[in-house]
Amino acid sequence: MAARGQREFFAVRTLDEALAGFRPSRRTGTETVPLDEALGRVPAEPVLASRPLPGFARATVDGFAVRAPDTYGASEGLPSYLDLAGEARMGRPPEVELRPGTAVAIATGAPLPPGADAVLMVEHTQATLPDLIEVVRPVAPGDGMVRADEDAAAGSELAPAGRPLRSHDLGMLAAAGLTHVAVRARPRVTVVSTGDELVPAATAELEVGQVRDSTAPALAALVREAGGEPRHAGIVPDDADALAATLREALPDSDVLIVSAGSSVGARDETAAAIASLGEPGIWCHGLAFRPGKPTLLADCGGVPVIGLPGNPRSALVVFRVVGAPIVRLVGGCTDPPPEPSVRARLDRDLPSAAGRLDVVQARVRDGVATPLFGSSSLLSILTAADGYLVVPGPATGLAAGSEVEVTLYR
Amino acid sequence: MAARGQREFFAVRTLDEALAGFRPSRRTGTETVPLDEALGRVPAEPVLASRPLPGFARATVDGFAVRAPDTYGASEGLPSYLDLAGEARMGRPPEVELRPGTAVAIATGAPLPPGADAVLMVEHTQATLPDLIEVVRPVAPGDGMVRADEDAAAGSELAPAGRPLRSHDLGMLAAAGLTHVAVRARPRVTVVSTGDELVPAATAELEVGQVRDSTAPALAALVREAGGEPRHAGIVPDDADALAATLREALPDSDVLIVSAGSSVGARDETAAAIASLGEPGIWCHGLAFRPGKPTLLADCGGVPVIGLPGNPRSALVVFRVVGAPIVRLVGGCTDPPPEPSVRARLDRDLPSAAGRLDVVQARVRDGVATPLFGSSSLLSILTAADGYLVVPGPATGLAAGSEVEVTLYR
Repeated sequence: MAARGQREFFAVRTLDEALAGFRPSRRTGTETVPLDEALGRVPAEPVLASRPLPGFARATVDGFAVRAPDTYGASEGLPSYLDLAGEARMGRPPEVELRPGTAVAIATGAPLPPGADAVLMVEHTQATLPDLIEVVRPVAPGDGMVRADEDAAAGSELAPAGRPLRSHDLGMLAAAGLTHVAVRARPRVTVVSTGDELVPAATAELEVGQVRDSTAPALAALVREAGGEPRHAGIVPDDADALAATLREALPDSDVLIVSAGSSVGARDETAAAIASLGEPGIWCHGLAFRPGKPTLLADCGGVPVIGLPGNPRSALVVFRVVGAPIVRLVGGCTDPPPEPSVRARLDRDLPSAAGRLDVVQARVRDGVATPLFGSSSLLSILTAADGYLVVPGPATGLAAGSEVEVTLYR
Repeated sequence: MAARGQREFFAVRTLDEALAGFRPSRRTGTETVPLDEALGRVPAEPVLASRPLPGFARATVDGFAVRAPDTYGASEGLPSYLDLAGEARMGRPPEVELRPGTAVAIATGAPLPPGADAVLMVEHTQATLPDLIEVVRPVAPGDGMVRADEDAAAGSELAPAGRPLRSHDLGMLAAAGLTHVAVRARPRVTVVSTGDELVPAATAELEVGQVRDSTAPALAALVREAGGEPRHAGIVPDDADALAATLREALPDSDVLIVSAGSSVGARDETAAAIASLGEPGIWCHGLAFRPGKPTLLADCGGVPVIGLPGNPRSALVVFRVVGAPIVRLVGGCTDPPPEPSVRARLDRDLPSAAGRLDVVQARVRDGVATPLFGSSSLLSILTAADGYLVVPGPATGLAAGSEVEVTLYR
């Protein structure tokens, strides 16, 4: 017992230490996907423009393409006059070059004729003779238009590596003529469930004592949200050899390996032994100093992150959200994860917490008031009733009613 | 011209009016999907528990199942003694009934034997004779256990209608043995692009004047994020008859119809005429009093929402995000949409705005400082450079440098 106590003493880490310091080397490879399937995917390299965009100078107002100096000094009292020398057609190369003293009619989006350096808004002209425009306000070069490389210069970055592609990033890539993009492959995340009491979620009738494996399907959804591809390796009984065999079989096809572990102390030790046998450098921590993360085990087995989750479904899902999802993103090359929604709210009651232990607390939020939800960590209903969670920092001995807290919201 | 001016005067609405008041009747039907594909899907009806969960009383600590009164008064100085009468096995029905004066060894998660009403933590006992336990602290009924219906009573709501299913909702449904769930069908959202200058996004080489249709693929991504199923009906030239024909053909298979419209005044009028011909009650507004939403057209054609977007790609995407996505959610039965991430930041410069006009302004955010991004609304690069957007309210004539703003973040 003394040896075990000592080992645990050395191997417990804080949540911040885990998020910053647990960095197994595994990264997924690159694959090419059509733009239509690229939403949320992570570019492996910066995506660059091969040519300038839009590629030609375009009008951004309806009016007349001009040489700006031809309008200098024009006013209502002393208009300038320009000869109308044709029309720039939408979607076609300009047919005329703009000579000094002339103007070409142009609609928003049409290409400027060579020689033009500005577009005069139609509102700043007055109708006169059919082939003559009266200019009542001057324009500066560049007014009423965008340059040929104003949206993107050749070689400029259209989308950075490491940030999941957003809807408008896809628009930008489409504008540049890209039909495919090189992205990181989705991390293959294998979930192994253990526990003598567990039966597959699809089991229609339960015996007393049996529990459906609810953690695996919820973990699968969290893995998808983190950009991974979940796989379920099934349910293993509380048997050290069976667990070790299943993990060894799963490891070569996994970029991340998760053990949704038995909750008893004995099961934890069996899980630790099975994981330790998978490869070097092995177990990185035997526990995380936050509630409900205490029984969490993190290991680096030949570069592959292996995560042993607490046995209670609620604890397992909370730990995976705060610790596991960032690891899946890391392995998938996502260095700039999307922001999480959150809201500031006032606690409606005292929230006790042991000093030195960070607490992740489920909460409902209504009209700026946060109500912490308590109950056994075996109850999923605490999670489904919650709108999000708040963190009581380690140094605090709790938070008083009325304190302002930041609640990270589920979506 | 007077008639048109009057029509527009009456038909311009505010953004708030549109979000609250534009409510076409179309709702998608119901379909049944496996739990594995149900993340983010919207339950059509509340999902109810058919049986209590977990279904049997379970230990939540490692220790001994007891009758609580047998422990009353126990202390370190004056322990109580209970006969050890067997073990409750994990995952199996209890084999023994608990008689007064006895205890049954039990691990976290195992079913309580009949007659037990609490579980004594192993830490509150002391080892004595093999078949005798010494109890040094009393327990109250319900301690160290969850009741058979504590996670869900029979008939209680496991997930509400109208809120997209979250990862832990799927866990709860799995715990209850549900393998499928009845959800709203994804709204079929048809996008029709118009514009003589537009060519398909996959066009490798452009002529001067041609522009790839970048809006359609970006809209498709926004539609997916809002829970819809995008379809692209292709590019129609600026021709009133061709547009009307395409829209009439698309309408019967669409739950929402979007016209990514030509930007010229003429194209807008053609779009309005084509949409007005689609069905009653027809056009609901001819413009939205916000920037860049001004040229937006909203119509209700036989219950189907039809949205005419501005012609500039950036304007179209901003308008669809703030006005179109909520309509897609509405049609898909989503009454409780997921929260958007946002952050408070200080403006690093003055932000001018016309009084009476709400402005949606793109912004970068770094270390709590928001930098508004300006430039032609034809430039997608303003969007891809932004971390999110902020809103300058209608009554304000702008915001001063140093003002605190809420930036809605892209993800």
